[in-house]
Amino acid sequence: MSDLVTMSLEDVHGLTTRILLGHGVSADQTRAIANTVTNAERDDCKSHGLFRVPGYVKSVVSGKVDAKAVPEVRDLAPGIIQVDGMHGFSPLALEMGRAPLAERARSQGIAALAVINAHHFAALWPEVEPLGEQGLAAFAFVDSFSYVAPAGGTKPLYGTNPMAFAWPRENRPPLVFDQATSASARGEIQIHLRDGKPIPEGWAIGPDAEPTTDPEAALAGAQLPFGGYKGAALSLMVELLAGALVGDVFSFEATARDNKDGGPPEGGELVIAIDPSRCVGDDQRAGQLARAEALFAKVLEQDGTRLPSDRRYEARLRTPTEGISIPSSLYETLQELEKR
Amino acid sequence: MSDLVTMSLEDVHGLTTRILLGHGVSADQTRAIANTVTNAERDDCKSHGLFRVPGYVKSVVSGKVDAKAVPEVRDLAPGIIQVDGMHGFSPLALEMGRAPLAERARSQGIAALAVINAHHFAALWPEVEPLGEQGLAAFAFVDSFSYVAPAGGTKPLYGTNPMAFAWPRENRPPLVFDQATSASARGEIQIHLRDGKPIPEGWAIGPDAEPTTDPEAALAGAQLPFGGYKGAALSLMVELLAGALVGDVFSFEATARDNKDGGPPEGGELVIAIDPSRCVGDDQRAGQLARAEALFAKVLEQDGTRLPSDRRYEARLRTPTEGISIPSSLYETLQELEKR
Repeated sequence: MSDLVTMSLEDVHGLTTRILLGHGVSADQTRAIANTVTNAERDDCKSHGLFRVPGYVKSVVSGKVDAKAVPEVRDLAPGIIQVDGMHGFSPLALEMGRAPLAERARSQGIAALAVINAHHFAALWPEVEPLGEQGLAAFAFVDSFSYVAPAGGTKPLYGTNPMAFAWPRENRPPLVFDQATSASARGEIQIHLRDGKPIPEGWAIGPDAEPTTDPEAALAGAQLPFGGYKGAALSLMVELLAGALVGDVFSFEATARDNKDGGPPEGGELVIAIDPSRCVGDDQRAGQLARAEALFAKVLEQDGTRLPSDRRYEARLRTPTEGISIPSSLYETLQELEKR
Repeated sequence: MSDLVTMSLEDVHGLTTRILLGHGVSADQTRAIANTVTNAERDDCKSHGLFRVPGYVKSVVSGKVDAKAVPEVRDLAPGIIQVDGMHGFSPLALEMGRAPLAERARSQGIAALAVINAHHFAALWPEVEPLGEQGLAAFAFVDSFSYVAPAGGTKPLYGTNPMAFAWPRENRPPLVFDQATSASARGEIQIHLRDGKPIPEGWAIGPDAEPTTDPEAALAGAQLPFGGYKGAALSLMVELLAGALVGDVFSFEATARDNKDGGPPEGGELVIAIDPSRCVGDDQRAGQLARAEALFAKVLEQDGTRLPSDRRYEARLRTPTEGISIPSSLYETLQELEKR
């Protein structure tokens, strides 16, 4: 980790854009991905930033992803919008679904966005944060590849299956959390492997079903859910929501179907948006968001606490002027990708 | 625990009914509570069964709960039904909201039930299981009293804040989980105290902020979230959903408002129902639930696994003929309550 290259956020966006366009990704798909990658670097979410760009490229080169896909938005029910990613990447599909989802949440009180046939490789907070900024509460759920053992089991079945949640705040960014239902994200283990560092205990078991701190054994074995059987139940829930509910694959099916090019799985995602102002009577609407601030104040009055999104928002204040850093090895990889 | 009394499920229902009616609880409130208590005993969920009846009675005797309340159902938006419990117990309010919620989930694709001003003292699976039986996926969220420390903190703030989820299955009961976002339910610690047993490590810290296995110190200190900061984030989410979103109190407000009679807090609850058949295109509807069965089979083919609701469903096969057992001390308490 001694060898770092510093870049501005504009450089991150520009480099990502040039690499993707240079590999034949459509302008719209490229813009949506470059925004997602840049926002991840802006918020110091390294495992979803430039680290992911080689994988996006691999899945275009291999032909797994349709880099010129134009997603289709469909109206399935008053409260259900479907976006078919048409076998492209998910950021554009999600972007196209956002406005109709928000509109339905306002008119119906609650609505859902079912994304199918999209290749997902990013964090989940980019789905829910913009909904929170529009005054909505939101959830998102996505499955991935088979990486995580079910409760009591030893072999990978579930994805790392994150869920995200956003709550709107007045005059400040929404409260957001985005957390894998596994003990760690897949990308965190990959970064430990890259950096030659052991992983914490409790993240994974090896192919021999024994606990391991070796990232290579962890990647070959099975990740563990967070919090034991309760995290495993949430992971199963995410499989059902992002799989059978929206009509797309489970993680084990995505694994079976994948061409192993190192790029993202194709699958489904569920986003739910709720308009808080439609969930209360007229007398309670005015003070509704202020009431939540009283709860946040109660959290923060205890020493040692912080709100879930605060670390990201702190990075966001810093990176636009200070820039971001990536390992020089990654920088060189990206420069090679730009030249091709 | 050597001294047990065995009762039939009919006896459980009858005894609960006589005790509640004898204390002036309305026939409708009584029926809904007796069903909930009996179903908990039927499924071997001891901490939500007859164990809770003295608490129901205390809150009637103290005047905290309006034992004759008639809940009101209100139509807030196409996708939002509100039930005002009118300061009675929650089982009747939830029962009255169930049919309108299911109807809206079918017509809108997704809908929510916002329950307010109800005293909640039961498990959450009774909310979602009947929706699953009707072919719907469902979530439920409820807050309680301040029992659980936020991530990094040492003092109680959040409730044990369970969330439940149901997924419909063809020709068999739905898959359901119902789990506290705390490491343990409050009732589990109370039962350890009653039985003079230490609690597992990781459940709680004492008033001195140090880890404890003493149930009395745990009840006086703070419970811990399950799975560290991730469980704490889920607990915060439940506060927001069952509190500010529906326009009712947070756990710390419920604690401040409560008369400490040993009965249930008054507060809100959120139930969300989704019609899976409205979330997919026409071509995918027929095989949708069968696809989920393939996932469940993949879980169960690994040694040592089970599905979340299986323990309850196994008990349900046994208890209608074998009956259930409660400590004789509880039985004596209930008999005294019946006489009053």
